[in-house]
This record gives sequence, C-alpha cells and structure tokens, in this order.
Amino acid sequence: MTRRIAILAHEKFPERAKTATGIIRYSDDKIVAVLDRDQAGSRISDHLSGVPDAPVVESFEEVGDVDALVVGIAPIGGGFDDSWRPDVRAALERGVDVVAGLHYFLNDDAEFVELAEKHGADLVDVRKPCEDLTVSQGIADEVDADVVLTVGTDCSVGKMTVSLELMHAARERGVDAEFIPTGQTGIMIAGWGNPIDRVVSDFTAGAVEEMILEKGDEHDVLFVEGQGSIVHPAYSAVTCGILHGAMPDKLVLCHVAGREAIHGYEDTPIPPLADYVDLYEGLAAPVHETDVVAGALNTSGVDGDAEAETAVDDYSDALGVPATDPIRFGTDEILEALGY
Amino acid sequence: MTRRIAILAHEKFPERAKTATGIIRYSDDKIVAVLDRDQAGSRISDHLSGVPDAPVVESFEEVGDVDALVVGIAPIGGGFDDSWRPDVRAALERGVDVVAGLHYFLNDDAEFVELAEKHGADLVDVRKPCEDLTVSQGIADEVDADVVLTVGTDCSVGKMTVSLELMHAARERGVDAEFIPTGQTGIMIAGWGNPIDRVVSDFTAGAVEEMILEKGDEHDVLFVEGQGSIVHPAYSAVTCGILHGAMPDKLVLCHVAGREAIHGYEDTPIPPLADYVDLYEGLAAPVHETDVVAGALNTSGVDGDAEAETAVDDYSDALGVPATDPIRFGTDEILEALGY
Repeated sequence: MTRRIAILAHEKFPERAKTATGIIRYSDDKIVAVLDRDQAGSRISDHLSGVPDAPVVESFEEVGDVDALVVGIAPIGGGFDDSWRPDVRAALERGVDVVAGLHYFLNDDAEFVELAEKHGADLVDVRKPCEDLTVSQGIADEVDADVVLTVGTDCSVGKMTVSLELMHAARERGVDAEFIPTGQTGIMIAGWGNPIDRVVSDFTAGAVEEMILEKGDEHDVLFVEGQGSIVHPAYSAVTCGILHGAMPDKLVLCHVAGREAIHGYEDTPIPPLADYVDLYEGLAAPVHETDVVAGALNTSGVDGDAEAETAVDDYSDALGVPATDPIRFGTDEILEALGY
Repeated sequence: MTRRIAILAHEKFPERAKTATGIIRYSDDKIVAVLDRDQAGSRISDHLSGVPDAPVVESFEEVGDVDALVVGIAPIGGGFDDSWRPDVRAALERGVDVVAGLHYFLNDDAEFVELAEKHGADLVDVRKPCEDLTVSQGIADEVDADVVLTVGTDCSVGKMTVSLELMHAARERGVDAEFIPTGQTGIMIAGWGNPIDRVVSDFTAGAVEEMILEKGDEHDVLFVEGQGSIVHPAYSAVTCGILHGAMPDKLVLCHVAGREAIHGYEDTPIPPLADYVDLYEGLAAPVHETDVVAGALNTSGVDGDAEAETAVDDYSDALGVPATDPIRFGTDEILEALGY
C-alpha cells in the first residue's frame, strides 16, 4: 500500500528544500501536502514540473489524512529548527509518524518521545546509522557489478538526482541497475541505506563498502549517490571516504551552471573544472583506478534551451568528456559514455 | 601529582602497541608496568631506548600500586579483545581506573560499569567525542599561529611522534609551540583533544577546526597530529577532513623506510612518494594553499646510521624537500625547513 505523506519545508520550498523535492520527484509515496508558511496557498505544480501535484499549506493543522510527516529540509549542520515544533507536535498528537534525516535525532527529544508514545506514533531518524559498521576492508572492487559514482564540484549540485535518473534510464534500456543511497533523502526514497555523513569518521569508507558488498553481486550496475565535494571545506571527508570505499569503476562529475563559489563558503571559489577531474582521478587511483567518463550539468538556472546547450558544451569541453543536463535534455549522452 | 599507570599491550609490545610506546615516550605519567603475556619477564629497556624503564608482566595481578590501567593497543577497527577482560576486571576490583581509546566504549560494557561503580573506579573512554561538535566553518586560517600538519604515506608511520618531537624541539629554540592531538594516544598524552576518527563523519573537519580556533591565538605555532593517509582504503576520510579542517600552512610528510604496501591492505601498494606531495598539496589548495616543506622518515627498521642516512637522502630526493629521521638524527633539518 502506498504511504500517504506530508512534507515539512518551511521557508525553503522548493529551491532550498532538496530533501522535499527529491522525495516528491522520486519516491513511491503519495504526497498529500507540502508545509511552507511562505508559500501557503500555492501548489507544488506552481514550483516544479513533471511531478505529482498537491497543495502547499501553512501548517499541519491544514493537512488531511496522512501516514507520516516527513521533514524535507536539511540545513547545514543538520539541526532542528524550533519553528517546526508545532507541526511535529500536531502530527504526533494525531498519531501520525514523523520521519527526519537530521543530525538532531527526534528520538532524543523528550517531548516528541513522550507524545509519540502517548499517541502510538513512530519517530523515524533515517540518519541514525546502524550499530555494526566498521572500517573498510578495501574489497568493494571484488563485486560483479560495475560501480558508477556521482561526484561533485560542490554540495547540492544534483548528485542524488543524477544517480536516480541514470538508474531509471538504465533500467529502461534493460540494464539490471540499482541505486545505492548514501544520504538522508536517498535513504527516504530507497527505503534503506547507510547515512554516510552520520557514521563514525573512521567507518566512512566501510559504511559504503558494506552496501556495495550487499548489492554488488545481485545487479549489473550500481549507481552510487555521491556526497559533498572533494574540495569542500566541511564535507570533503565524507566525499573522500565514499570515493575510496565504493572503489568506483566510473565517475560522473556533477555541477551547477554558473556556480562560482562553494555554497555557504563564499570565500572559497570553485576551482577550474578540469582540476576536479585530476583531483578525483588522482585521489582514487592508489586505491582503485577510475575515470571521470561523463559530466552532468544542472542548468535549471539557465533561461532557454539554447543557452543551456551552450553551457553544457562548455562544461563538456572543460572536462574533456561528454556531458548533458539529465533533467533538461535526458540521460542519453551519459549512459552512452558509461557504455550502457 | 604524577599519575602512576600500568599499560596493557598483550602480544603487541612494543612494535604493534603504538599507543603504549607513545605514552611511555611522551606522557608525564609514571609507568609502573607494561602487561604483555608474550614478553613477560623482560623490561621496557629491553625493547625501547631513551625512555623510563619498568618491568613487563604477565597480568594485572602482578602490578603494584597504580592509579590507572591504560589500554595501550589500538587494533584495526578499535574493538575490545576479550582476552584483555581479566586484567580490566582485576584493575576495577582494586578500585583502579581504566582508560581506553577504543571505538568500543568501556562505558557501554555492563560488567565493567557494574564493577567500576561497586569499587569506586572510573572508566575513561578518551575516544568518546564531545557532544557539541558541528560542521567546519572553514576559518581555521584566521588564527594567528602558523599551523603545521604532519601527513603520511600510511597509518603508523610516526605522525604523532614527529609532531611531538617538533613541538618539543621548537620550544627548546624558544618558539611558543603547542601540540594539537587528534587521536587516542595523542589525547592520552596531552590530556585533552577531539578524537577525530571517532566523530560524526560530517563533523570531521569541524572537530579539528574547533581545536585550532581554541589554541591558535594563544601560540605562535601549532603542530597538528595527522591521521591515516590520503590514499588509505579505510581511513582517508579522516585524513582529508583534517587536511581541510586544519587549513595548515605547512605540511611534513611522514613515511617508514622500506614500507611498500598500505599496512593491513597488502594489495594496495604505496604510490610513488612524489605523488603524495602532489596529492596533498593539490587537494589542500582549493581550501587553503599549503606546501610539503619537509619529510620525516622512520628508519627504525634500517640497520646502521650510514644506511639510514642514505635512506633519508633518497627520501629527500624523492620529495624534493629536506628530510631527516627526527628520532635517529634529531629535528634540525625539519625545523629549519619550517623556518623556526
């Protein structure tokens, strides 16, 4: 049975609510409403195209019958904003489960725990890693599947989206492909996975390896969701652990057209794009040789397909590999570069 | 008052007990005994030179009056070996504190917790990170101090030792230098610090930055203890987070003469040494420019000073910077390369 959910995205929908938009676009859940007090009265279709529609409302009070309220915002640092508390409280008081992927765990909040127990609701922290993770053995390359990892020039450039689009498109071509989620949104969509950015630092590579080993002999291709960027001032550790733990055979480098500095770290300019190719390949090689075989450019901020095509061509030239915007122009160039 | 301690290092002393040897060499504690059932009957001085002496014994039963039993072994994965249990139990039954830097927390062990409470002993898990860590702000370069980070070709190549030797030697030259510990042994020696390999992966860089910000305006030079290696199949995430979180001004590359493969990952050969210089500098640059300014070579496995000198010269040539073995030949070359 399809789950019915409401998604909390206050003051951030849609641009700064990537968990919300990821779930809307890719999950099998039925979206009943989005909560955003700044956009209340509009509809999802006013903001996003090609996805199921639903109203955007002011608060949980206006939401009809649902199975879960999902927190669809992932602020830097992963904290819980107290302005969300009345909606979470209202959901729990109606016995509705609350799902979040924050570093702050709902299950550590005394008020939520008490309300959940009283009203028979579940608090689901998808970012809580499983207990038995350990260090990488360095053997992810022993699986049968081809491993394709999305890597990025920055956070929030579309790595999860590209991995999911490639997986679906590969399946349409008859390839037995699977998606390996590594972050809270990917886990919410896939219904399983290790939240790599939340595991013990020493186990970063091991937590990815464990998933590759679990799925790698059951499928022909694994599309691994990348995280962060290898030059990100805060998150590069996660990126590096995924690169070495997944031991990918092929990389797809993701970027947002026009972005010039690391998001949230405006003093840190994005290096020349060709440097990323050298850095990712050079860093991966001592553990497992890999190549950037294609580029994925997010041109959602570019007006007009002609301009977007120019941006894609420039991106392809900078990387020296085929590129496209998988959302705007489809995934064909990338799938062909990958050989599927 | 100087604390009196016994150090547990069963079957690993001294070569594979780097926590034990680090504490013996650098801490202010009085070492009363080392526990190693394979070496019982010998003395520390039979194995290590230039350090305080004490007997090596079979079990805690043979240890006299001490304030603490310190677990001086750090196996891959950080587990607790049940063959150590009788000694920990014996210590607690005498009201003696037990200190460990494992991923397995003594405070999560029901038997130990019960014994500690009953006999008034403390269980100290130095690898338990403080609760309020968060993501890096990317501002470690704003402190007044010069930041010098030791980086390595592999784990267990002497990064902590080199950092401590350089700090002491710099102080002897009148430089106001401080040591920034990042691992369990360094924390045991310094008495403070964040265990970077144990923090939440997303907070790896932030946990280093927090220490740099705390000490960086109080001293002229910070010697930051590095961890792992940027090409380590399991631990590179920690290395990368420290490199970007510490925003070092200068790097000292540490290596063990003759090592040809990653320790414990014998299928992964050590890349050409010059590649490390390019990788560390290339990876650091987009966040904060830095240079490998000197090399530190552990020649403890090389017989004869002439052969060791040749090994150091070869290492220096490979890196293109001055190098030495700080234990065998002193730290002068490195301090001069650093400009102190």
